[in-house]
Amino acid sequence: MKIGIIGSGNMGRSLGILWAEQGHEVFFGSRTTKKGKEVAEIAGQTTQGGSNDEAAAFGDVLLYTVRGVHPAEVFSSTSVIDNKILIDCNNQEISENFDYPAITQSLAEKLAAEVPNAKVVKAFNTMAQELFELAPIPLKNYNVSVFVAGDDESAKQTVIQLVQEIGFQAINCGELRHARLIESAGDLIRLLMIQQQMGSYATISVRSLPPAETQRLGGRQASNLK
Amino acid sequence: MKIGIIGSGNMGRSLGILWAEQGHEVFFGSRTTKKGKEVAEIAGQTTQGGSNDEAAAFGDVLLYTVRGVHPAEVFSSTSVIDNKILIDCNNQEISENFDYPAITQSLAEKLAAEVPNAKVVKAFNTMAQELFELAPIPLKNYNVSVFVAGDDESAKQTVIQLVQEIGFQAINCGELRHARLIESAGDLIRLLMIQQQMGSYATISVRSLPPAETQRLGGRQASNLK
Repeated sequence: MKIGIIGSGNMGRSLGILWAEQGHEVFFGSRTTKKGKEVAEIAGQTTQGGSNDEAAAFGDVLLYTVRGVHPAEVFSSTSVIDNKILIDCNNQEISENFDYPAITQSLAEKLAAEVPNAKVVKAFNTMAQELFELAPIPLKNYNVSVFVAGDDESAKQTVIQLVQEIGFQAINCGELRHARLIESAGDLIRLLMIQQQMGSYATISVRSLPPAETQRLGGRQASNLK
Repeated sequence: MKIGIIGSGNMGRSLGILWAEQGHEVFFGSRTTKKGKEVAEIAGQTTQGGSNDEAAAFGDVLLYTVRGVHPAEVFSSTSVIDNKILIDCNNQEISENFDYPAITQSLAEKLAAEVPNAKVVKAFNTMAQELFELAPIPLKNYNVSVFVAGDDESAKQTVIQLVQEIGFQAINCGELRHARLIESAGDLIRLLMIQQQMGSYATISVRSLPPAETQRLGGRQASNLK
């Protein structure tokens, strides 16, 4: 797969390197060609680097790590991301005392409204960059969730594949409008990491447990509780 | 501990039974004395039952399962819950197509505003009743989170103890205002259970993984990703 990283900070660098390790072609984009090239040099392997425009033109899938800037300012023209799969991994800024405002519109939905010809998929907003050090092994053993939401089913399936390849568990959350709940989970985990001092390796795992009747409970509790 | 269950539906019955099994004194309250007594009869053990007023007078800790009704209508006088620990386990109703409104004020904060003399603690809103069939064993093995928030530290610690005794992992989320994030997690897990068909045994686990340097990664990835 050809993957363009839009904004090659911590998040972009880490995910770009992991995908390159899986054999994908990765292009690190940045505000300046020079910085993009520097990131590719450090990342090594077969990665390339340059401007955000070049990264967008290169990739079929784009990781969008830029926040708080209209895409028209990130690219010379937003037409460069027409029909591309655009992974939005952003969260709102952390407010003073973690007094987050309620999310009435998600960043992902806002982005989708700004670039209606791109296929926006929400993913990768509920973990700190440190966690990527564990990918794909031993991460696979921990069953850490990446919550994924998007309106284009095929784009979402591509992102789910990219999630799984680096050792995460993809949790399909349906339509893009549910990004609001996913971003709220991003707020919650950052509260736990920082204010509640769980640290950067705090993770969220969603899974279905085996039902009671398969667990030889003898039926006592199960029947009592009905 | 003396525990009063306010509203003895699925949630109240299940938790009441589990706490009674742990040796607590449990009183099932309901809108009518008759219904409360019936629940206690089915629950068995040493449980008692009667009206919500009686349950509130009985318990030092109250599980509040009533939603969408002002406490002044649940009790003959709200003074009956003065100084009590009040566990709010509620979520907003599921909207059509899971198009939940953004939570600008949590149910827990609303309740705390309505009964300022009670010590409201948010907990137990991110799982379905079926999960209680697994408590406390084998649930303990699964590390399922109960998110807990409250402004009274001692009340919160009491609730954390009650959470842990029945096999859950308590996640301290700080002040009651963070109940907004916890209720949003309640919305997310119900979306996953129902729309995304993960079923009633879908769970959320938050935990801190061991850092990369303790996991003998050889430092390659960890250094590359910085």
